[in-house]
Amino acid sequence: RTVSPASVMLNQKQRRYNVVRVDAINPEIKKTEEKVVDSVLIEELSKPVTPYCGCWRSGTFPLCDGSHVKHNKATGDNVGPLLLKKQK
Amino acid sequence: RTVSPASVMLNQKQRRYNVVRVDAINPEIKKTEEKVVDSVLIEELSKPVTPYCGCWRSGTFPLCDGSHVKHNKATGDNVGPLLLKKQK
Ligand code: FES
Ligand code: FES
Repeated sequence: RTVSPASVMLNQKQRRYNVVRVDAINPEIKKTEEKVVDSVLIEELSKPVTPYCGCWRSGTFPLCDGSHVKHNKATGDNVGPLLLKKQK
Repeated sequence: RTVSPASVMLNQKQRRYNVVRVDAINPEIKKTEEKVVDSVLIEELSKPVTPYCGCWRSGTFPLCDGSHVKHNKATGDNVGPLLLKKQK
């Protein structure tokens, strides 16, 4: 069969997204930085439990603000925060 | 102009991936769990710096094994680990 150049282009893009799955997971946070690496000085944690964001959707990144709930609902994903816990 | 049904369908798929971006960010880790929430007992950290995975690609999740480098290169992303640091 014959295909137009436009159809070929769309097929290539579709393959890239559906099969190879080369998507970035961080759409917005600190995109001017080459790599986002935050540090926690653990002795400075004051609360018994402090949740850190694993979904790259938090408005208070690197802390978790609960945005993973919306991300999981929208995508069927199962991500959540890393909990830093102090012993009593 | 006229478009074939196939072209319209491909355009809709392309829009979904490029604009709406509803992809899951965790393709493989603990997918039988409804939400992956790991805990760190900070008093039990022994090294001066312990990196925890933020890319959901680590073979030693929740710890970082450097897999974020390959993910960033493949996708143009800029994610990295969370560093848990003990004071000297
Ligand atoms: S807001 Fe990102 S894990 Fe909770
Ligand atoms: S392996 Fe995931 S952040 Fe390093």
